[in-house]
Amino acid sequence: MLGEQGVISKEDAQAISDGLDRIQERIEAGDFVFDINDEDIHMAIEKQLIADIGEAGARLHTGRSRNDQVVTDTRLFAKKRAADLMGANVELRRALVDQAKANFDVILPGYTHLQHAQPVFLAHHLLAYAHMFARDFRRLEAAFDAADASPLGSAALAGTTYPLDRHATAAALGFADVTANSLDAVSDRDFLLDLSYAASVSCVHLSRLAEEIVLWSTSEFGYITLSDAFSTGSSIMPQKKNPDFAELIRGKTGRVVGDLVQLLITLKALPLAYNKDLQEDKEGAIDAARTLEDCYTCMTGMISTWCVNADAMRESAHKGYLAATDIADYLAKKGMPFRRAHEVVGHLVLLCEQRGCGLEDLSISDFTAQSDLFEPDIVEMMDLTAIADARTTIGGTGRGAMKKQLATVEKALEADAAKAVG
Amino acid sequence: MLGEQGVISKEDAQAISDGLDRIQERIEAGDFVFDINDEDIHMAIEKQLIADIGEAGARLHTGRSRNDQVVTDTRLFAKKRAADLMGANVELRRALVDQAKANFDVILPGYTHLQHAQPVFLAHHLLAYAHMFARDFRRLEAAFDAADASPLGSAALAGTTYPLDRHATAAALGFADVTANSLDAVSDRDFLLDLSYAASVSCVHLSRLAEEIVLWSTSEFGYITLSDAFSTGSSIMPQKKNPDFAELIRGKTGRVVGDLVQLLITLKALPLAYNKDLQEDKEGAIDAARTLEDCYTCMTGMISTWCVNADAMRESAHKGYLAATDIADYLAKKGMPFRRAHEVVGHLVLLCEQRGCGLEDLSISDFTAQSDLFEPDIVEMMDLTAIADARTTIGGTGRGAMKKQLATVEKALEADAAKAVG
Amino acid sequence: MLGEQGVISKEDAQAISDGLDRIQERIEAGDFVFDINDEDIHMAIEKQLIADIGEAGARLHTGRSRNDQVVTDTRLFAKKRAADLMGANVELRRALVDQAKANFDVILPGYTHLQHAQPVFLAHHLLAYAHMFARDFRRLEAAFDAADASPLGSAALAGTTYPLDRHATAAALGFADVTANSLDAVSDRDFLLDLSYAASVSCVHLSRLAEEIVLWSTSEFGYITLSDAFSTGSSIMPQKKNPDFAELIRGKTGRVVGDLVQLLITLKALPLAYNKDLQEDKEGAIDAARTLEDCYTCMTGMISTWCVNADAMRESAHKGYLAATDIADYLAKKGMPFRRAHEVVGHLVLLCEQRGCGLEDLSISDFTAQSDLFEPDIVEMMDLTAIADARTTIGGTGRGAMKKQLATVEKALEADAAKAVG
Amino acid sequence: MLGEQGVISKEDAQAISDGLDRIQERIEAGDFVFDINDEDIHMAIEKQLIADIGEAGARLHTGRSRNDQVVTDTRLFAKKRAADLMGANVELRRALVDQAKANFDVILPGYTHLQHAQPVFLAHHLLAYAHMFARDFRRLEAAFDAADASPLGSAALAGTTYPLDRHATAAALGFADVTANSLDAVSDRDFLLDLSYAASVSCVHLSRLAEEIVLWSTSEFGYITLSDAFSTGSSIMPQKKNPDFAELIRGKTGRVVGDLVQLLITLKALPLAYNKDLQEDKEGAIDAARTLEDCYTCMTGMISTWCVNADAMRESAHKGYLAATDIADYLAKKGMPFRRAHEVVGHLVLLCEQRGCGLEDLSISDFTAQSDLFEPDIVEMMDLTAIADARTTIGGTGRGAMKKQLATVEKALEADAAKAVG
Repeated sequence: MLGEQGVISKEDAQAISDGLDRIQERIEAGDFVFDINDEDIHMAIEKQLIADIGEAGARLHTGRSRNDQVVTDTRLFAKKRAADLMGANVELRRALVDQAKANFDVILPGYTHLQHAQPVFLAHHLLAYAHMFARDFRRLEAAFDAADASPLGSAALAGTTYPLDRHATAAALGFADVTANSLDAVSDRDFLLDLSYAASVSCVHLSRLAEEIVLWSTSEFGYITLSDAFSTGSSIMPQKKNPDFAELIRGKTGRVVGDLVQLLITLKALPLAYNKDLQEDKEGAIDAARTLEDCYTCMTGMISTWCVNADAMRESAHKGYLAATDIADYLAKKGMPFRRAHEVVGHLVLLCEQRGCGLEDLSISDFTAQSDLFEPDIVEMMDLTAIADARTTIGGTGRGAMKKQLATVEKALEADAAKAVG
Repeated sequence: MLGEQGVISKEDAQAISDGLDRIQERIEAGDFVFDINDEDIHMAIEKQLIADIGEAGARLHTGRSRNDQVVTDTRLFAKKRAADLMGANVELRRALVDQAKANFDVILPGYTHLQHAQPVFLAHHLLAYAHMFARDFRRLEAAFDAADASPLGSAALAGTTYPLDRHATAAALGFADVTANSLDAVSDRDFLLDLSYAASVSCVHLSRLAEEIVLWSTSEFGYITLSDAFSTGSSIMPQKKNPDFAELIRGKTGRVVGDLVQLLITLKALPLAYNKDLQEDKEGAIDAARTLEDCYTCMTGMISTWCVNADAMRESAHKGYLAATDIADYLAKKGMPFRRAHEVVGHLVLLCEQRGCGLEDLSISDFTAQSDLFEPDIVEMMDLTAIADARTTIGGTGRGAMKKQLATVEKALEADAAKAVG
Repeated sequence: MLGEQGVISKEDAQAISDGLDRIQERIEAGDFVFDINDEDIHMAIEKQLIADIGEAGARLHTGRSRNDQVVTDTRLFAKKRAADLMGANVELRRALVDQAKANFDVILPGYTHLQHAQPVFLAHHLLAYAHMFARDFRRLEAAFDAADASPLGSAALAGTTYPLDRHATAAALGFADVTANSLDAVSDRDFLLDLSYAASVSCVHLSRLAEEIVLWSTSEFGYITLSDAFSTGSSIMPQKKNPDFAELIRGKTGRVVGDLVQLLITLKALPLAYNKDLQEDKEGAIDAARTLEDCYTCMTGMISTWCVNADAMRESAHKGYLAATDIADYLAKKGMPFRRAHEVVGHLVLLCEQRGCGLEDLSISDFTAQSDLFEPDIVEMMDLTAIADARTTIGGTGRGAMKKQLATVEKALEADAAKAVG
Repeated sequence: MLGEQGVISKEDAQAISDGLDRIQERIEAGDFVFDINDEDIHMAIEKQLIADIGEAGARLHTGRSRNDQVVTDTRLFAKKRAADLMGANVELRRALVDQAKANFDVILPGYTHLQHAQPVFLAHHLLAYAHMFARDFRRLEAAFDAADASPLGSAALAGTTYPLDRHATAAALGFADVTANSLDAVSDRDFLLDLSYAASVSCVHLSRLAEEIVLWSTSEFGYITLSDAFSTGSSIMPQKKNPDFAELIRGKTGRVVGDLVQLLITLKALPLAYNKDLQEDKEGAIDAARTLEDCYTCMTGMISTWCVNADAMRESAHKGYLAATDIADYLAKKGMPFRRAHEVVGHLVLLCEQRGCGLEDLSISDFTAQSDLFEPDIVEMMDLTAIADARTTIGGTGRGAMKKQLATVEKALEADAAKAVG
């Protein structure tokens, strides 16, 4: 660009370009020696370039400053990592969708307060996470977009006196645009905040799924068995499978949120423009991106290889009077006010408690003794699958509604997959 | 909607609707008594409705649950507050633009490491903040969009068995869409995270401007004088103006980031679906939104009424050898390699140090003694305004470049202003 | 003190003292009108005093400044709240000790990775929390001590020219000492950090216990039943008991940590001495103290009134091959290297898996088939209580060791109880 | 200990001890190969030991578990690093005291709201920081003490069945005590929280001093000149000294607070006893300790080698009507109520504003024109050093009071220095 714009001679430009190519080859071949005294990679390369091609090499630095160079590198890093994470995010969502399809008819108790509430399909439960991670994809995309402008040409803080073609360098580096204000460009690290924030929220979502995996792996729940590759055994208890990976994912939430907090604090109250405090911008973002990528990959593997114990889920669902709401709805649909229908169901549940049985074990006369609105169909309605299927509203757990939900999820997933590779 | 869908009778629907209208009138008139035993506003209203219209009132709650009701309220709150903040954000940016225009030709030292680096126009400095806040507008908009889907119909966690028209209730409440998964809908608080995050980043930006206002108000800098309305005097020192408001804005950054951290921690490792922990979602978000709104308003007032001491800024700019980079560029443009040009300038600065003068006080012979590439035009170039104007690259501080920047900023501002009121 | 030191006349001192007494009476009687224009309580009282006793009242403010007054109030607040929290902390520990005694012989599975590991006594489990909260008492005490020095006499920032007796005012206000440097005294808020930190750690400990209460209340675990006073029912499911209070305690952890983060951020990079940012020191500390106090009280009530389902705990403990480690130890004590003993036990566990039985169901011949080091006493050793009791090391779960532990815990508790009221 | 207690034979004990000695020699000589498959250092050493000495080596692990081993290592680390930091803390305080002594008579403006308030001695200003860091020493000491108990013998979670002598292993490893509850011992990470918290508060204190160094290094303040070793130059501006190190220290505050937040989040809601999440306890604590140590060392060097520009400080102090409070006190001591004295001073300051002079330039008649309580001594009182010296209260800036303060600070410093090496 410097050559094209006449800032340096075409000959110098060519010499610099050739010289840089040779240096790149040497770096890739592992033959380039970095000297700690060169401070950073830019200085190391420039020094070598001058050693290789002489005075022309010293013109490499024309019209730029360490301040805009460093933030250009950082933006390239942020774009690369955001794109990587978008890819890993898509893989995790695909694994969730695959598991949802593979376990489409599996019933488990739906929980509120970790208490049994209503029966739901496991697929519905897994798709809930697919939606969370789809929102996180949006956040990662926003972080990518925030980084996608070239600061080159902002120089130290005020722009330069050279007739630089900023759009040319932006295009050459794959940036969608150029930054609009030089003071802002050298001191803005918002794009790293956006990346760390996206990673933090997604880690929180992962921690929720990880918590459930830990719970479901207990002997008390027994809902899933993790594969050997994603659990840790005990030399003394061969049957034991510790959900170490799920625990680590859960534990790493703190780390990524810590990275976000770090950068917010570092940026607080910094006057314009560049301050050395900004050197503290990198490690946290690098760590947050790496941690999230590892967690995505690990979670994808874990849920793709787990064994779902459908019987244990179904058996558990039978224990919790999960039909209670539906009996109340049954009465309400026949005209009984909702709050009163609750009382009737309360009496039925107490009856079960006394007998040590479930609602599905009651006879039609047990029902009609409480209200003459009950008819024989109430007995069939006690089937858990039927109860779940009756949730037909958009976004409900009924399989009819879920099929539509699944179609939407898959469509969005493929659109995001295309973006992630783009 | 319940009436339209045939879930309840048209008569009941009309009675409920009329009854709610009367309750609203009473609330607005201050005649409605809330009883703490009613737990929340929904219960209080429902109880009154039943008292007013009898059994039909008990049908109000059909096909819904506290879980979807509460999150619907919270989403309406988040949308309302995000929109308010978008409006206040636009006002602040407008004030920055107005100040940039009013001080278009004012020169001050541009700083790196809080050391004088190069002369910049104050307008350029203020526009840097306008860009930060424009990015924050995007974040607030993302928070608005994240909240803009109706969870009604998700019921407790699994959807309902009633043929609800979820799009109808969404439209009636002004939501752009409906949520897609009932388990996710009752436990998702991402939209509040997005709001608190947007507020946190914007508070960090405000803290930077606040820090500069505190610095610029010192007797050492003396760049600005705050108006009486936005400073606090001392009974003993009438001339004293403490920048209390800028300090408070700076101090409140911690509070808003604390609100974000709170919610991230609260959400960590919660299993699906609703858990009571989620009751802790509101206070932090309410506080973050109110704090940011106050800070926006206060900052807008403070910069709109400050008095810029252009002379003090210019005088300070004269002290720092701010032309140094330009002399190096001058030599480089004449063919001297950049790193060597630096050395020449170093000698000139040392000369000034010895003489106790500025670069603009050097004669042409002082220059040519260091390099015969210098010509008489170098002396004119020492003018600070000329130096700043020579930064002609896109986003540079030169007034030519700045005019284009200003046009872009204003266009984006008016587009956002239209969104904020929409 | 001002009168004693001759700074003001004895008559003025008496008039001020009498005037303040009357104002206090009025405040306590609810007859004192606070005017928002008076800025704070000091100004309100001073204004009233001048109105009441004339010119002498204006001498009240001699030798002091808002800066040292405000931080004196804040220190008094911090001491009061730290002492309150120490008291509530002792109550919680007492409840834990009472529960430990009441359930001294109850066995439950000890968990690692939420997997069954070895049988432990519930008392041992509860005492683990008693130790955590005992450490938190130390932190609260440190916060109390940090606040326990009087800043009065530091004036605005540099001390005063009056011959004040700082020790006299310190003693009158119950401070153990005076602060040592006036600049530090008006800008130090470490004592609030210490309070918020102590509260944060204790909330983290509470969140662990709360998590276990939520888990133990599930139908899958079924280890405890919460009392009606500390759980929330459902109108539709009378038997349902949501552990709302445990969830709220768990959720509030975020809030208190958020308060700590807030203050750390606010204090970051503040130059000496007083800055208005410090006005943001109060709300977070007030909130942290109140939240922790509520959580302590609520947790105390919850565990004091829960019903422990000892049978469910024991039954669960039978399921997890919890004797495995002891069998390995048995072999090791007879000379078999530890790692090899593990292999033998692994074979026994696999045998149980195949038969669908527990280790306690194996016969002596099953044991000797794996190793001839086994003797008939191995069968008796399979009793869970015996296994737990065999942990005789200091701090082990064996009841012999636990009795000593309990004695130590109670002694420390009573010592802390004496401090808390002192 | 295992040999002494008869758990293993004396021969085995000796063989193990000798074997471990040889392994240590190999590690120290760099001849020991760590294999990633060994999971951690304990397994690597045990494997080698078995390879070296045979079956006796397999008895090394008797009566212990990875859970108590790992936390023992972590506690040893925490003690070591807390002690290192106590040492570095003492060095910094010593440097502050040395600078206070070396600049005992230097006057600078004391600031509130970064506005000139009253003249103070630089020594007083520096001692304010010495007090902050002395409090941080207490926090580091508390972290040391929290870590100073041996968990060995807690085994996996419940204690062991071997007659271990826990006090013997504690003593051999230099622990002051043993932990009291095995479940607590394997899951307690409070001592790391205490370490990260101590580091966080101290970083906040460092950030305040760093902020002042940045300010004082500006051309606007010009109070100090950093040494070349602790500043960064510019190739183009040889006179320029960027306070990079102060900025980095300020920026690293975020990092250390982030480390604290990380661990608090990781620990939230973990059930007893050991969970794999706890593996995330180390990196943050290691980072926090290293960062603080570097910051202490760097700050010590920076202030030990700075050049204090006493003239610039004094000249600045002359500009701010810093005598205003003293004139008011002068009048108050002669019987004028305080609030009225303020008004009189207000008039005098306004007079100076109009004349463009300082209070020290007023004549006795200017004073008496405002109040006949003024006598000729008022003119002498306008000397800044006299004004500062008149702050004679304990902890005031007057040199008399300061000498006592200094003596106390030095005494405490030497006591802490003795502890740090102990």
